[in-house]
Formats: sequence, structure tokens, C-alpha cells
Amino acid sequence: MRPQDIIRQKRDGKALTTREIAVFIDGVCTGAWEDYQITALVMAMFLNGLNEREQNSITRSMLHSGKVMNFDDIDAPKADKHSTGGVGDKTSLVIAPALAACGVAVPMISGRGLGHTGGTLDKLEAIPAYNVRLSFAKIKRVMRECGFALAGQTAEIAPADRRLYALRDATATVPYIPLIVASIMSKKLAEGLDALVLDVKTGKGAFIKTLAESKKLAAALCATGRSFGVKTESLVTDMNEPLGLYVGNALETFECLQILRGEMPEQAARTRELSVELAANVLVQCRLAKDIAAARKMISNAIDSGAALEKFGKNIELQGGDPRICDRPERLLNAKLVETKILAESSGFVSVVDPLVVGECVSIVGGGRVKASDAVDHAVGFKCIAKVGDRVKRGDTIGVLLTRTAKAALPVSEKLKGAYKISPKAPKPIQLVRARVK
Amino acid sequence: MRPQDIIRQKRDGKALTTREIAVFIDGVCTGAWEDYQITALVMAMFLNGLNEREQNSITRSMLHSGKVMNFDDIDAPKADKHSTGGVGDKTSLVIAPALAACGVAVPMISGRGLGHTGGTLDKLEAIPAYNVRLSFAKIKRVMRECGFALAGQTAEIAPADRRLYALRDATATVPYIPLIVASIMSKKLAEGLDALVLDVKTGKGAFIKTLAESKKLAAALCATGRSFGVKTESLVTDMNEPLGLYVGNALETFECLQILRGEMPEQAARTRELSVELAANVLVQCRLAKDIAAARKMISNAIDSGAALEKFGKNIELQGGDPRICDRPERLLNAKLVETKILAESSGFVSVVDPLVVGECVSIVGGGRVKASDAVDHAVGFKCIAKVGDRVKRGDTIGVLLTRTAKAALPVSEKLKGAYKISPKAPKPIQLVRARVK
Repeated sequence: MRPQDIIRQKRDGKALTTREIAVFIDGVCTGAWEDYQITALVMAMFLNGLNEREQNSITRSMLHSGKVMNFDDIDAPKADKHSTGGVGDKTSLVIAPALAACGVAVPMISGRGLGHTGGTLDKLEAIPAYNVRLSFAKIKRVMRECGFALAGQTAEIAPADRRLYALRDATATVPYIPLIVASIMSKKLAEGLDALVLDVKTGKGAFIKTLAESKKLAAALCATGRSFGVKTESLVTDMNEPLGLYVGNALETFECLQILRGEMPEQAARTRELSVELAANVLVQCRLAKDIAAARKMISNAIDSGAALEKFGKNIELQGGDPRICDRPERLLNAKLVETKILAESSGFVSVVDPLVVGECVSIVGGGRVKASDAVDHAVGFKCIAKVGDRVKRGDTIGVLLTRTAKAALPVSEKLKGAYKISPKAPKPIQLVRARVK
Repeated sequence: MRPQDIIRQKRDGKALTTREIAVFIDGVCTGAWEDYQITALVMAMFLNGLNEREQNSITRSMLHSGKVMNFDDIDAPKADKHSTGGVGDKTSLVIAPALAACGVAVPMISGRGLGHTGGTLDKLEAIPAYNVRLSFAKIKRVMRECGFALAGQTAEIAPADRRLYALRDATATVPYIPLIVASIMSKKLAEGLDALVLDVKTGKGAFIKTLAESKKLAAALCATGRSFGVKTESLVTDMNEPLGLYVGNALETFECLQILRGEMPEQAARTRELSVELAANVLVQCRLAKDIAAARKMISNAIDSGAALEKFGKNIELQGGDPRICDRPERLLNAKLVETKILAESSGFVSVVDPLVVGECVSIVGGGRVKASDAVDHAVGFKCIAKVGDRVKRGDTIGVLLTRTAKAALPVSEKLKGAYKISPKAPKPIQLVRARVK
């Protein structure tokens, strides 16, 4: 079966057979398909569509393009959370230790930031010497000892996805639900999970902007998870403003440690709230709590008691990092950074803090990646002092950009001002959880 | 302007600006666009369409990606014929010398065979030592001396097209009219012509099968030619059976020399008829004949008088080949070839000789290319003894396959039998010229 014959089928609007999809994904892995044939087929899929059977076939072929982990010998429910990516979205660093403290085993495989969105691995690497390159055996060992492991995708996990994603990113074919589902689920299903909760972001700072599309993605993810025998639920959550106080790698890790230490600034409240909500959902799915209210209490208690912080400290030690950071999180901050204040241009209520603009600006000053091969500056970032709904006076500091030099701030400071809107009337409050999808 | 931003526009069904198209074609030439970005955009063009302005912009950008010839100092009308490709389609070898004999200057840039269709260059290279790799200066010199030059596309002519065509061929995006038009016209317009006639093939052996689509392509080619100031007309001609007696490189050149020598076998009549028709059209467009009837007479006379043969001999000499082939064309034939006869399985009328099957079989035995990088065997081929409408008796030889060894014929002999259908009733005669489009 030649690539061009399979491409022709999809070009002409036909459904691909399971065999044709297997040949395609195999070709992606082995190199039998050229990059230019892969992108031609992906564009044809994007424009002519994939049905549910094709979507599941792609997911299955991608999953089995690599190794699947097996944790049957760990006597705890295995579960994970995955987010579709946002700005200031740092909940993994609260959820993983909190779930571990509640008796869940969490083999969390995460990604790196790209474009305006951050990545968990970059946040973790802000911790001196923290190592995210773990083998399967090491993931299991770390998880067995502290309840969770935080690792990067290895060449062993869904290798087809790495090549496919990079090509989609370069050809404007990322935002297509069946391929998003296959990309996410082929990696998550490789974790050998019992349960999974998905945080599907919606709004300006999400790559899917509308609630309707986000719900569609949430439903597709759940259906696929279940068809592979994994309990799966999705929360569709707001990404119309950055989540919590900070955007930037070390800054976000700092915020999570503050939450775990009970030293949370008020702007971080939603980071905690969303972490609790997602983790509680996992506890219910794993039948470790009788209902969501009881589950929320368990997670809150794991945070407030210091049990989650202790798990995090243990994890940092096991993954090669400096656990003293848990006692002195301010060591993550770089005192030499230059502050550029964003001032309110009028008095009133903050009605917009555009997360896309904030994310892009942090990326431009070095805190994120424009290309996948870019290096990341862990120190720089943005502090969202005023949140949507806050009352401000003209001249108040509503945000602070943190850069290495004053010059570095110049290209983005005007743009950052434009991220804010101040209105005379109080805006409708942003609802954090927009929908729950099973 | 990043490639993915331009791809996104077309993905979303928007028309590309002239500037965006220029950036794309420039990226194809310079390598600033990756292969996989080119094919993603091409698939989006294929599925979401290009309007006439976009089509002309692509043609113009591709034309100007290379050099354009200038023959203003040659005091004769400059004209050419181009065919979209068929099986046994060898008219260039009759048309070019016949037009030269009538006072037209013909700078004919041709291609090589691919898949089931043959290429003029391969047919010419069956002539010992004939050289098709000519510089612009050499093309002009040869044309000045004998009235026509037959050359291959150089890296200087529409370089964007070479890369683009190879990628389209590998991604099932060849059969899309605006890209076909851009590909053909960017090369033909580089010849600095006054007039052009296009032979748009239609039917089983053409890459466009239906008359309606073929007419659409013919009209698009004419409109584009005219918009660049070149008189352009198209004939839509039959490709439901192989043209003439032979399919195969040396064999087809032999057939043309027979025509030019007045030794034409009856099965070659349509090769001559189509050559006369196309060349006559050029004469009328160049105002060298008052109407098509007068033009036909002029071309027929150029053939019958031996003037065209003389031009061909002169051309062969100028392009490094052995002109004695004109006196003894049988020297092109290889007496050591093995004949495999196809016999009529019943008595009746030949109603089908499928050109696609014949072309593919000749290609498989070495006479054509499966991949562009394949070498071609000039000697082998097929002799179409019985033509559509001929009355045959069971056991008659209706075709002869010529291969290097008996073994080489084995994989295709059954398939070749299947190219023929014999019916009890006489079929409707095949009309050679199906439409004339201006």
C-alpha cells in the first residue's frame, strides 16, 4: 500500500480502513512515509474529516507504536490528570503530590511549553537539578516510594506522536479534534491507568476558543478513554484569564509551593480551587471517596496538613532535585530580575486580562518557546496582580513583568498593557468550571 | 510571513493574496519552505480551491522563479505545441519539423515519461547520441539553423515547478486543474512564444478521464495563456486507445520517421492526422495560413514533400545525433527483442484497447518509469496491430509485446490481454478531436 494511494482515499473523502491507518502510523514510526506525505494526509484528514472508528484506530495505532507501562504490581489505583494547555496552568504540581498523599499512584508524563502555553517539565526544571528524564523502571521506583513520578515523554512512549505533532505544528493542522484526541490519549493510555481526568481549557488563552468546541473535545476524549477501558472524565475550565498569580516557570513552581505550604496569596486561590476540583474528580473515579464533596475535603486536607508538601519533598529528592526548596521556596526566585510595572490607565474594574497576550509576552522575553528547539529561561515571567473583577484606581500596579534586563521588556511592555481592559462597571465573574463531561 | 500562517489561510478556505503566493513560490525555490509545509498547503489548495486570480498568481510566480527566453531577434513567429500526456502520443516528433518547414520557430521544451505516459525526451534519446540537454544559447542556435530545438527542462526554467511537481506526485495532488495549469504554463510561457496549441488528452489513458473536466482544463489553459499575452488554443483529443501503431520510445520515433518518409503503416494514420491538426492550428494562430483548411494543406505538403524530414535530419545533426537514422529508420529497432503475441480470443470487432493498461505494461517491462529516478529501456514496447473498430478473427495477432527476454513478458502478458475487448457488433468509431477550445 503506497502512501499516495492512502492519501488519495482521504483526499476523495473516503473513510480509511483500520489497516490503512495502521500502515500510515507505522510509516510515521519507521520513516517509510516521508514528512511531506504525512502532512498531505493530515491536511486531508483535517479538511475531509475522520469518523469515530478512524479516530480510535489512529489512537490505537499510535499507542501501540510504543511501549505501554504496566503497574499491576503496585497495589494502588493508578490515575492521572492531563490539561490541554493554558497560561499560568500549574495544577499538576499541586495535584500529583495531593493525590499521592491520598493513596493514588500517579505516573504523570508531561510535556514542555510551546507558543503561549507553559509546560510542566519546564516548571519542574526550575528546581535545581530536578531530573525529568526517567526510564520506565525509574518511574515505577519513584512512584512506589513517594506515590507519584513526573517525567517527560521518552522515545518509548507513542513515538509516532512526536513526529506527527511536530509536523502538525509546522503546518497549521494542530486544532483538529480527532488528531488532538489521538495525540493526548495515545500518550495517556501508555501510562497504564485505571482513571484519568482531563482539564479541557476553553477561551481566549486556550487553543480551542469556544465552549461548544471544547465540550466536543472533552466528550471525544472521554469516549476514547472509555473505549480503551480507562475511567475518563473531563472538566471544561476557563482560560479567559491567566490561572493564579504567576506566569513563568520558576514563578509558577513557587506559587504551587506557597499553596502546599499554606502561604497562598489571594490571587492564587483559583490555582488551588482548580487543583482540588480535578484531584477530587480522580478520587471519586478511583472510589477512594464516596462523592465529590468528600473527595474535595480529602484533597484539601492533604494540602492543609502538609502531607502533599511532604510527598513533593520526597519526590524532588528521588528525582535528583534539591528538596530544601520546599522549606525555602523563595530560593526559586531571582532577585536580580528587572521589574516593569503595568499601571492601570483608568479607575474601575478589571474586565479583561487576555491570557493569550500574557502568554505570548512571557514567551517572547524568554519564558517560553516560539519553536520547539528554543531554550527556556526559567526565571522570567509575569505577575498578575489584578485579576478580572478586581477594583483598581488609575496608576495602580496591575501587573509586573520580570525580565533579565530593562531592554528585554521593551518589545512587549506596550503589548502587555493591551492585555488589560478596565471598565466602569463590574464584569460578570468568570466561572472556573464551565462544564463537566463524562 | 510564516509558512504555517499562509497554510492556515487556505486551510480556512480563504483566498491567498498575490503576496502570500509569491512568498510560497519563493519558499519553494529557496528552500525556506520545508517539503512538508509545501504539501500541506497544496492539499489545502486541492480541497479548498483556488480562484482564477490565485491561479494566475501561482503561474506568474512560478514563471518568474526562473529565466524566460527571448527570441525577439529571430525573425519568425515563435510557437509550440504541448500535450498533457498520453500513451503512444508521439506527435511532437512530426509537428516540430513540419512547423519548422513552414517557417515557424519552435523552441520545444519537453519532459520525460512517468507512470503510464511516455515523454518526448525519452523518444528522442532513442536516437544514438541525440542530446536534449541544451543551454538557452544552444536552443537559440539550433532553432536559428533548423527552425526547431527539442530540449529538456533545465534548472533555469520554472525551478519551482520541478520541486512542486515531484511533491504533488508523491502526495496524490497532481490532478487539480489550477496547479496543472500553473505547472504547464509556467514552463511554456518561459519559451517566449507568440502562439501555443495545447493537446488536452481525455479518456481512459489521460490523467483527466471525463470530457467535461478536460474541457475545463483546456479553457483554463487558454485563459491563462492569453492573460500573459500568448495566443493560445486547445484541442481536446481522444485518449481511449493508444495513439498510432507503437508504444515505446525507439518504436515511436521509428513510427514518426515512417510518417515523415511517406512509409506510414495504416495503424499510424491517427498519429499523422493529429499531428497535422495541431500543427495546422499553430499556423493559423501565427497567421501563416488564412484558415485551418489551408493550414492542413501546408502541413501535409511539408510532410509529403520531405521538407519536414529534411528539417528533422538537420536537427538531429545539430543536437549531436546520428542523422543517417532518417535514411534508415529501421536502425532504431532492435532485432533481438522477444515477441509475445496477444491473440484475439474471439471473432468480432475490437471495441476496447485500454491505453492505461498498455502504458502501464510497457512501463513495467522497462519502457517507462514507475518512479522519476528510474532508468528507461528505449528498445522495448508494444505494437498495437488491431485498432478499435477493426474486425478480427479468433486467433489473430492483435498486439505484440516486445521485451528483452521471454521472462520479462510474463508479469504483464495476462494484463495486456485484458486491455482488449472484442464485441460482436462494430463499436462507435472513436472521434479523434473531441473539442476545440479557445
